Amino acid sequence: MEFEIHNLKFETICFRLFPKRNGKPLAIVSRAKQFIDNTRVCYGTPGGRPAFFTIMKVLIQLLLWLLFSPVLFAADSLPSWNDTAAKKAIVAFVERVTKPDSADFVPAPERIAAFDNDGTLWAEQPIYIQFAFTRDRVKALVPQHPEWKTKPPFSKFISTPKEEMVAVTEHELMEMIMVSHAGMTTEEFGKIVSDWIATAKHPQTGKLYTEMTYQPMLELLAYLRANSFKTFIVCGGGIEFMRPWSEKVYGIPPEQVIGSSGKLQFEMRDGKPILMKLPEINFVDDKEGKPVGIQQHIGRRPIAAFGNSDGDLQMFQWTTAGSGPRLALIVHHTDAQREWAYDRQSHIGKLDKAWDEAIAKGWTVVSMKDDWKTIYPSSR
Amino acid sequence: MEFEIHNLKFETICFRLFPKRNGKPLAIVSRAKQFIDNTRVCYGTPGGRPAFFTIMKVLIQLLLWLLFSPVLFAADSLPSWNDTAAKKAIVAFVERVTKPDSADFVPAPERIAAFDNDGTLWAEQPIYIQFAFTRDRVKALVPQHPEWKTKPPFSKFISTPKEEMVAVTEHELMEMIMVSHAGMTTEEFGKIVSDWIATAKHPQTGKLYTEMTYQPMLELLAYLRANSFKTFIVCGGGIEFMRPWSEKVYGIPPEQVIGSSGKLQFEMRDGKPILMKLPEINFVDDKEGKPVGIQQHIGRRPIAAFGNSDGDLQMFQWTTAGSGPRLALIVHHTDAQREWAYDRQSHIGKLDKAWDEAIAKGWTVVSMKDDWKTIYPSSR
Repeated sequence: MEFEIHNLKFETICFRLFPKRNGKPLAIVSRAKQFIDNTRVCYGTPGGRPAFFTIMKVLIQLLLWLLFSPVLFAADSLPSWNDTAAKKAIVAFVERVTKPDSADFVPAPERIAAFDNDGTLWAEQPIYIQFAFTRDRVKALVPQHPEWKTKPPFSKFISTPKEEMVAVTEHELMEMIMVSHAGMTTEEFGKIVSDWIATAKHPQTGKLYTEMTYQPMLELLAYLRANSFKTFIVCGGGIEFMRPWSEKVYGIPPEQVIGSSGKLQFEMRDGKPILMKLPEINFVDDKEGKPVGIQQHIGRRPIAAFGNSDGDLQMFQWTTAGSGPRLALIVHHTDAQREWAYDRQSHIGKLDKAWDEAIAKGWTVVSMKDDWKTIYPSSR
Repeated sequence: MEFEIHNLKFETICFRLFPKRNGKPLAIVSRAKQFIDNTRVCYGTPGGRPAFFTIMKVLIQLLLWLLFSPVLFAADSLPSWNDTAAKKAIVAFVERVTKPDSADFVPAPERIAAFDNDGTLWAEQPIYIQFAFTRDRVKALVPQHPEWKTKPPFSKFISTPKEEMVAVTEHELMEMIMVSHAGMTTEEFGKIVSDWIATAKHPQTGKLYTEMTYQPMLELLAYLRANSFKTFIVCGGGIEFMRPWSEKVYGIPPEQVIGSSGKLQFEMRDGKPILMKLPEINFVDDKEGKPVGIQQHIGRRPIAAFGNSDGDLQMFQWTTAGSGPRLALIVHHTDAQREWAYDRQSHIGKLDKAWDEAIAKGWTVVSMKDDWKTIYPSSR
């Protein structure tokens, strides 16, 4: 939707008021614009320019001045990032697409940013966190299934030490996921996840898993949102596993979480509708599945994508194939001291082909060791 | 996320400033709040209360005063609605959930509103608009398939008059949809839809289909958004058919459109990634499918649902089964003069069981004839 006041684009007016500010006021401007558009429809004057807009124009200019003068320009939005090439690439990209008189300006609704979760927003070693959840669920169900203690693959899940991957086939893993993720309602499952994530701790760091998110990435999410990006999770992990805590931890609401999923079935139970989680795969949001998941859920191509492994390659390809400026950023796990160091040979978060393509195509590769001042948020 | 300033909830402060205003300033407040939350994370003080907030508090109070005094309270947000029970029910509901000291207050992120499209936001008689599109596509493809002129079901599609449903079996209809909606990339299909919707006209009214949206519902969408609701389409129609124009026509961005869909496949074509539309059903977003689609895409239960037919019954059931205040609203087509009149016996938009349940459960039933001053937007 184009929005004009006396033949000037609204964003241009604001930019003219704040020429030195690199388009940053646009975050609030686009919200104000949306509000005004709504209001115009409310008042039945979607095409008109009533006196109301003359008043609004003055008020909003004042408002922007008041709001932005002391705030947005006072400090650095990415304080946990070292002042290296990665950070510069991020800031340059955001300024390019948000500056209203930039040739590469992107309207706010098209500022879609897609983030992988495991290994990109939080840790994934020594085993995926959802795998730890699955194992804990299997263990919690043993009292109801004592035979599992001796019956593989259950027995393997129960006996393998916490910090080790269980040696299972893909089929066996799927069986475990179905046992632990299906046969209950979506609400029941959400409650189980919420309870688990509130208390379960990493076997090596002793931290809550939600404390093993990456502070620089939390800042990046917030920085993008402050610049009117809509941030999405696009991850191979389970959609219903991430949603109960994504809003609290990342500021990403459930409707902006895309992940793998099982089939659901609407039923009436005692006269009340429920959604049953069936032991059947609905969608796998990994590799070739990521662009498909993006199209199904978002319906437009992201202009920025963030990942850490070969599972994100197709998402990077899809994102960067659009016209105009694009940002593809890979988190490279290079910090054995503060986190983990792994790439081409790793069984988890293998980074091989995507790394080659990043080098060939000039995508941004972040070295956690060199580019990040801190890894995890300081305890709150 | 709770947000406090000196132990007062931010929304409470604003409400205390504007006690007579029934919580309406909350639309902008919640945006300001989101902005501030983002900013707080930016500045690395997610738990703190720096001096910055004292400044912000004053500024935002001023801002709200300036912004809302002349605007939101100057006029009626639903001018095309008669002052009848339906309108009163809508306004009462919105005030109940947005008033911060209401026992039924709902935080902004949970204000999810789900709208059916066909027959709820735009007309669906004498044939679904997507059916008209399908037929036009089949006809447009005849030069490449001259044999279709005599081969059913193609021949039936080609020869039946524009204002009549083609007498086809469900299987035959599906064959036509696959022919016209698959075998091309998502981008190619989006372009075809955009071109068609810009020019195709209704056989009886001569209007563009996008001019056959309902003005009272456009106002309702805007009114809800101005009160920090997130508005979604949840419709049996094709997701890729609605997305190219939903933002322009309804203010609903593609990522908030849920509909039926075909399977997609990621491929590389001449070194560029594409998403092919396969001739295979992925999801049917109708009846029992609607709550499933809502869960898959939104991940939380709407607090308000709007529909017009039995296809919306399960969405109403799912929406109203949540705790707290709920709004279920049925658009009843009662206006043979200005639109169409149909319900229990109609082949399109049949309203029978959902009507009975609406009466039994006290859901709001809108009579288009009695409750709406105008049907379509005045020409722009």
